[in-house]
Amino acid sequence: MAGNSFGTLFRFTTWGESHGPAIGVVVDGVPPRLSLTEPDIQQWLDKRKPGQSRYTTQRQEEDLVRILSGVFDGVTTGTPIQLMIENSDQRPRDYRNIADRFRPGHADYTYWKKYGVRDYRGGGRASARETASRVAAGAIARKILGPGVRIRGALVQIGPHPIDRSAWDWRAIEDNPFWCPDAAMALRWADYLDTVRKAGSSAGAVIEIVASGVPPGLGEPVYDKLDGDLARALMTINAVKGVEIGSGFSAAVLKGEDNADEMRMDGDKVVFLSNNAGGILGGISTGQDIVARFAVKPTSSILNPLRTVDVDGNEVEIATHGRHDPCVGIRAVPVGEAMVACVLADHLLRHRALTGGI
Amino acid sequence: MAGNSFGTLFRFTTWGESHGPAIGVVVDGVPPRLSLTEPDIQQWLDKRKPGQSRYTTQRQEEDLVRILSGVFDGVTTGTPIQLMIENSDQRPRDYRNIADRFRPGHADYTYWKKYGVRDYRGGGRASARETASRVAAGAIARKILGPGVRIRGALVQIGPHPIDRSAWDWRAIEDNPFWCPDAAMALRWADYLDTVRKAGSSAGAVIEIVASGVPPGLGEPVYDKLDGDLARALMTINAVKGVEIGSGFSAAVLKGEDNADEMRMDGDKVVFLSNNAGGILGGISTGQDIVARFAVKPTSSILNPLRTVDVDGNEVEIATHGRHDPCVGIRAVPVGEAMVACVLADHLLRHRALTGGI
Amino acid sequence: MAGNSFGTLFRFTTWGESHGPAIGVVVDGVPPRLSLTEPDIQQWLDKRKPGQSRYTTQRQEEDLVRILSGVFDGVTTGTPIQLMIENSDQRPRDYRNIADRFRPGHADYTYWKKYGVRDYRGGGRASARETASRVAAGAIARKILGPGVRIRGALVQIGPHPIDRSAWDWRAIEDNPFWCPDAAMALRWADYLDTVRKAGSSAGAVIEIVASGVPPGLGEPVYDKLDGDLARALMTINAVKGVEIGSGFSAAVLKGEDNADEMRMDGDKVVFLSNNAGGILGGISTGQDIVARFAVKPTSSILNPLRTVDVDGNEVEIATHGRHDPCVGIRAVPVGEAMVACVLADHLLRHRALTGGI
Amino acid sequence: MAGNSFGTLFRFTTWGESHGPAIGVVVDGVPPRLSLTEPDIQQWLDKRKPGQSRYTTQRQEEDLVRILSGVFDGVTTGTPIQLMIENSDQRPRDYRNIADRFRPGHADYTYWKKYGVRDYRGGGRASARETASRVAAGAIARKILGPGVRIRGALVQIGPHPIDRSAWDWRAIEDNPFWCPDAAMALRWADYLDTVRKAGSSAGAVIEIVASGVPPGLGEPVYDKLDGDLARALMTINAVKGVEIGSGFSAAVLKGEDNADEMRMDGDKVVFLSNNAGGILGGISTGQDIVARFAVKPTSSILNPLRTVDVDGNEVEIATHGRHDPCVGIRAVPVGEAMVACVLADHLLRHRALTGGI
Repeated sequence: MAGNSFGTLFRFTTWGESHGPAIGVVVDGVPPRLSLTEPDIQQWLDKRKPGQSRYTTQRQEEDLVRILSGVFDGVTTGTPIQLMIENSDQRPRDYRNIADRFRPGHADYTYWKKYGVRDYRGGGRASARETASRVAAGAIARKILGPGVRIRGALVQIGPHPIDRSAWDWRAIEDNPFWCPDAAMALRWADYLDTVRKAGSSAGAVIEIVASGVPPGLGEPVYDKLDGDLARALMTINAVKGVEIGSGFSAAVLKGEDNADEMRMDGDKVVFLSNNAGGILGGISTGQDIVARFAVKPTSSILNPLRTVDVDGNEVEIATHGRHDPCVGIRAVPVGEAMVACVLADHLLRHRALTGGI
Repeated sequence: MAGNSFGTLFRFTTWGESHGPAIGVVVDGVPPRLSLTEPDIQQWLDKRKPGQSRYTTQRQEEDLVRILSGVFDGVTTGTPIQLMIENSDQRPRDYRNIADRFRPGHADYTYWKKYGVRDYRGGGRASARETASRVAAGAIARKILGPGVRIRGALVQIGPHPIDRSAWDWRAIEDNPFWCPDAAMALRWADYLDTVRKAGSSAGAVIEIVASGVPPGLGEPVYDKLDGDLARALMTINAVKGVEIGSGFSAAVLKGEDNADEMRMDGDKVVFLSNNAGGILGGISTGQDIVARFAVKPTSSILNPLRTVDVDGNEVEIATHGRHDPCVGIRAVPVGEAMVACVLADHLLRHRALTGGI
Repeated sequence: MAGNSFGTLFRFTTWGESHGPAIGVVVDGVPPRLSLTEPDIQQWLDKRKPGQSRYTTQRQEEDLVRILSGVFDGVTTGTPIQLMIENSDQRPRDYRNIADRFRPGHADYTYWKKYGVRDYRGGGRASARETASRVAAGAIARKILGPGVRIRGALVQIGPHPIDRSAWDWRAIEDNPFWCPDAAMALRWADYLDTVRKAGSSAGAVIEIVASGVPPGLGEPVYDKLDGDLARALMTINAVKGVEIGSGFSAAVLKGEDNADEMRMDGDKVVFLSNNAGGILGGISTGQDIVARFAVKPTSSILNPLRTVDVDGNEVEIATHGRHDPCVGIRAVPVGEAMVACVLADHLLRHRALTGGI
Repeated sequence: MAGNSFGTLFRFTTWGESHGPAIGVVVDGVPPRLSLTEPDIQQWLDKRKPGQSRYTTQRQEEDLVRILSGVFDGVTTGTPIQLMIENSDQRPRDYRNIADRFRPGHADYTYWKKYGVRDYRGGGRASARETASRVAAGAIARKILGPGVRIRGALVQIGPHPIDRSAWDWRAIEDNPFWCPDAAMALRWADYLDTVRKAGSSAGAVIEIVASGVPPGLGEPVYDKLDGDLARALMTINAVKGVEIGSGFSAAVLKGEDNADEMRMDGDKVVFLSNNAGGILGGISTGQDIVARFAVKPTSSILNPLRTVDVDGNEVEIATHGRHDPCVGIRAVPVGEAMVACVLADHLLRHRALTGGI
C-alpha cells in the first residue's frame, strides 16, 4: 500500500536510487518449480541497458543481476525472489551543481514538496533507472505465462513521425536501434534524432505492446479490469503521459457499427472480424491479441537552458549536462513489455484462483 | 483484491447487477465528523441519472440513494457507509431474446468465457448502471477533499467533432445536455447525435476532467503514482479505451524545451508557465490544475444489426432494441469527476499518513 | 485497508450498526457456479440467533438474510454477493441513558477517543451484532470449501469450569444450549449460569474450533501463515482475549520430544502420532485436524454497578439494563466456526493460485 | 498479498533463506526526514544475535546490516529502505543428511507438500533466521513511534517455571541471559536449561511484551483491530502457538465485574483502576500499557531421536545435530518487541490518515 509495490498475487516491490549502492526488486507470489537462472533475467535487462547506441544515454551500467533468494537448484521454491543490480557507474558529482534547482519537467519540485528532502543524485528514486527492476520482474512474469504467451513491443512514433502501419514487420525491430517495425521509418528516425540531439533538445515517442496467445477470461471486473491494470502499469513508467487500448482515442471518432468487433465461427472456434477492442471486453481478455499503446514525453533533461527556480525561491536557469537519452521512449520498449507481462501473470494467477482453470 | 474495490485508505466496494433488486456501494475509510446527508449524495446522482434528455437512455431510474450505515446525527462516524439504490425500472424481459447471443463490443462473451455463467439481464454486473455507485462514492470523496478542491468535467469531443478550446467557458456546461464548454459546438452536437440516433447508430466521445485547488505532494511513487491511479480509475469506467494526462499523446510530438513547464516566482509562490504536465510530475501533484482526458467508444448496443455467434456456436445476427444511450460519453462526465475525486481523496489521506501534513 | 474487510482473494466487507436500519456484508472473490440460496445462509444465522435459550440475550432478532446481488438462477456468478439483514428489534431508547457514560470493558471510551463521535445505540458498530455478518460470510466460505471440509465448534469452558475432554462427544453439542461436547458438564454450566445471571454478573468462556478434511499445503509463509490468519480472525471477534493453536500455551510446558508430533506411514499415507501442532507446521496445514481455541471475556454489560466516568469528566456509576448475554461465549461458537471457514476458503483459493492444484 | 509482507501503510517485505547468500527486508511507507543510521538498526539486531550465551545457538552470525536505499545524508527520504544482512556462517553440509527426512515439529513436511520442492538447508525460508529481518524492520518502526513509546519484552516462563510476577523488575532483564524480570527465577532457569540441554531435549517459553506511552485511538475496527493485528504479528513468529492480550485466557475465569476495568478521573485525566484489557478495548488502544503474551513451543530440533518418514515413504528416525537453541523462546523476545513496534507504527500512520491527529 506504500507505493513501491505492484500486483496482487504476483507482486513485486522495487527499491533503490539511481546513484545509491544498488537497486533491486523482491518478487513475491512466484509459483514453485519454475526453472529460473540469472541469464533468464539478464537477457531482458540487456535489451534495456543504456549505452547501446548513440540514441540512448552513454551511462555505462552493466546492469548485472544477482538472484539472492527464492531459487534453489535452478528452480523457484515459491518463496520471495530478491534480485539485486549494483550501480557501477555512479557519478553523483554530475548532479551537485543542480542539487538546489528544480529541473522543469522532472520530479525534483514535487519530491521536495512532498517529502521535504530529496536524493538529488540523478533523480534518486524518480530516475528511469528504477525501470531496470521492472524488466527483471517482467522476466519472471514471462516464466509464469509460459511460452504460449508472446509479448512484443515496438516504437510506432518518434516526435512527429509515426510509422507506416502497413509496413509493419516484426522482424525489423531487431535490425535497428529503435525497435521500429518499419525499416524505412527507422532510417528517417535516425536522421531526426541526430538533429534533435545536436540541437540540445529531445523527442517524445509512442510505444505499442502486443501480447499474443493470452487465454480468454483474464481480468477482474470492475476495478481490477485488465485494461485498468494495464493503464496503471504503463502510466507509472517514467515520462508516460497517455495510454490507450485497441483503437484507443480513435474509437471516439468511430460509429458503433464500425467499432464493435463482429464475431463469426472458424470451425468450432469463435473469431473476431476486427480488433478495435484491443483484446479486452468488459475488462476481460477475449483471446485476441492484447494491444496497448503509451505516449512518452520528450526527455526533460536537455542541454538547452530552461527557466526555473531554486529551493530558496530564486529565479534561475538550468541546462542539464548529464548523460541522458535524447528519446527516452526507445528504452521504454522493454519496460513496457515487462509491465504488460507482470499484469498478465498476476491476472493469470488470479483467474486460476477464482475458477481453478487454465 | 477481488476486483470490486477501489482505493487504499479511502476504499469503496460496489455490488449489484443492472436488473437485480438493488445496487450499492460500501465506503470504508471515511474520516469521522464530516457532515453527510442523503441530499449531499443525491445531487451528484441526479446529474448522472438517465432520461434527462433525448440523448441519453430512456430508462426511468429515480436512483434514490439511502444511507444504511456509518452516519449518525448527520455526521460520519468513521465506520463503513453503505449506500443503496433500489432498481425501480427493471425490464429483464427486454433481454431474454438476446440471452444466448453475444453482443459485439459488449462483455457478454468474456463474462461467459471467464465465469461459465452470466446474468444476461441488461449486462448484469457489466452494465454502466454500476457507475451510479461510483458517483455516490465520489460524493463522499468530495466531502473529504473539502471546498478548496473543485473537480469539474466537460465533454470535449463527440464523434469526429472536437470543441474549439479557445471558446472554453465553464458556465456553458450547465446550459446544454452535453456538459459542453463550447456553446456553439453543443448545437452542432445536438444535430449530429439526432442523425446518429435516427440511423440506429451511436457515437464515441472524449471527456476532460479538471481538478483545481489540489495541494502539491499527493501521489505515491513509483507504482501508486497519482497519474497511474487516475489512469486505472478512468480506464475502468465502462467503454473507456484511452486515458491521458496533461498534453497526453500530443506530448510525443513536442520537443523537450516545449514540453517542460518552466517555473518562475510570483511573489513567494512558485508558478509554472504552462501545464503540459497536467499538474503531475513524477507521479506527484504540483499544485497546478490536474487535467485528465479519457476516450469513450461508441455504444455497442445499436439498432443496426451486427454479425455475432451464440452460446451454441451458431452464427447469428443481433440488433439491440433496449433503451440505450446513443452516446454513453455524455453520462460518463459525472462518473469521471467522481473517479477523480475518489483518487484524490485516497491520496490526500495517504499523504497525511506519510507526512502528517496536507 | 480501511478496517472493515477480511481476506485477500475470498474477501468480505461488513457494514452496519446495532440499531441502524440494517447490517450486512458484501462478499467478493466467490468462484462462479456454486449453488447458493438464502436458506443455505439462513441455517447458520439461525444457530447464532439471539433469544434461543435463557442463556443468551432476549433481543428478538429474526436475522433474516436477503441476497441482493451476485447470484443468478440459484448459482453464484463470480460477482460480489451482497447480503443484508434488516434490524427488526431496535430499541435505541434503552441506550439513551448511557449515551454520555463509558461502560467499563466496552469500546465506548476508545471509539470516543478515536473518532470524537460515536453511535451509542447498543454499541453501534462495536456491537456483537456485527458477527451476524461474519456468520453469513462463513456460509459462503463453506460452499467454497465443499463437503469434504467439516468445521465444528464447541464450548470447552465456562467460567472456572472446563469440560472433561475424555468425555468429548460431538453428538452432545446439539442436545444442550451451550454447544457443549460433555453432556454432564452442560448440566453443571446451566446451574452455574443461572447463578451468575441472577447475581447480575456474567461469565467468560473458551471455545474450540476443529476443522477436519483440510488438505495439506494451505497457508502462505511467513506473514500470511494459516495460524497467523486464524489468530487474527478469532481475535477480532468481540470480547476475545486469547487464541491458541493445537497444544497452545501448554506447549510451553512440554519438552521437545513430547511436543513434536512424530510421523509414520499408514500404507502409503503419512500419519502423525499426535497433534500438538493443531494441524499447522510452519504456517501451512499438515492435513491433520486444524484445532484452534479462543478465550472470551465475561460480558461487560452487567447489572452490577461499576465505577466509570462520563464524557464531561464526571465520576459516575453505571449499570446496564439492556438485554444482554450472561455469557457471550455461547453465541461465539458459530461465529468462530464462520471465521475459520473464511480463513480456510481464502487460503484454498490462494493455494490454487500459486500451485494450480488443491 | 503473497505472504511475505506485513503491514498496510508501514509495510515491509522480507526475503532470504537461512543458508543463501543473504537475507533482508525492504521497508516501504516510512515517513521522510527521520534520522536513520546503520547503528540505529544494529543495536537491536545485536540483542537477537545468536551465540551470546550457552542457552542459544552457537551459530556465529555477525548479522551486520547494510542500508542499501531510502536514506540520504542520514535521514529517511520517504522511499523504500532496503536492509541486507549477509549470511556469513553457512554450513549447508550440516543439513545434507537430513535433506530427505522430515523433521517432526518442523515445516519440512508442509513445505514439501505445498511447494513440491524445498530448500532444506537449515530450514530455508522457514528458519528462525528470518526473524532478524523483523528486528531490523522493528528498529525503523521505533523511529516512527518516537521516544514517547517504549516497547519492552520479558521472558515470563520457561518450561513449567513461570516467574513470580510480584518480583517483576525491568532492570533485571539486562542482568541475565533470559530477559527475565525475576532475578531469582533466572538462576533457576539456568539450572533447568542446562539439564534440558544435556538431556538432548529442549524447552518452551512464554514471552510478554509491554508497550507504554501508546496514545489512545490506535486500531481500526473491526477486522484490523489492534489486538487482531498483534495476534497475527506474534503468531507468525516461528514456533509460536498462542497469543493473549491483557488477562488473556484467564479472563474466561473472571466474572464480569472483576474483569471490566473501572474508570476514574485523576485531575482531568481518565485513569483505569486495572488493566485486564491489556490496553485495548474494541480493538482500539485505551492509552494504558499494551500487554501481549505469546507461547513458544520447545525447539523441534533436538538430539533425542524421533520417529519420522522420508520423502520416499520410508519410516526412519531422525536426530538433529546442527547448532540449535535449547529454548528458542529466549531469542524470541527482541523479535516480539519488533513485531509489536511494527504493528503500532502502522496503526499510528493509519490513525493519522483517518483523523489527521497525533
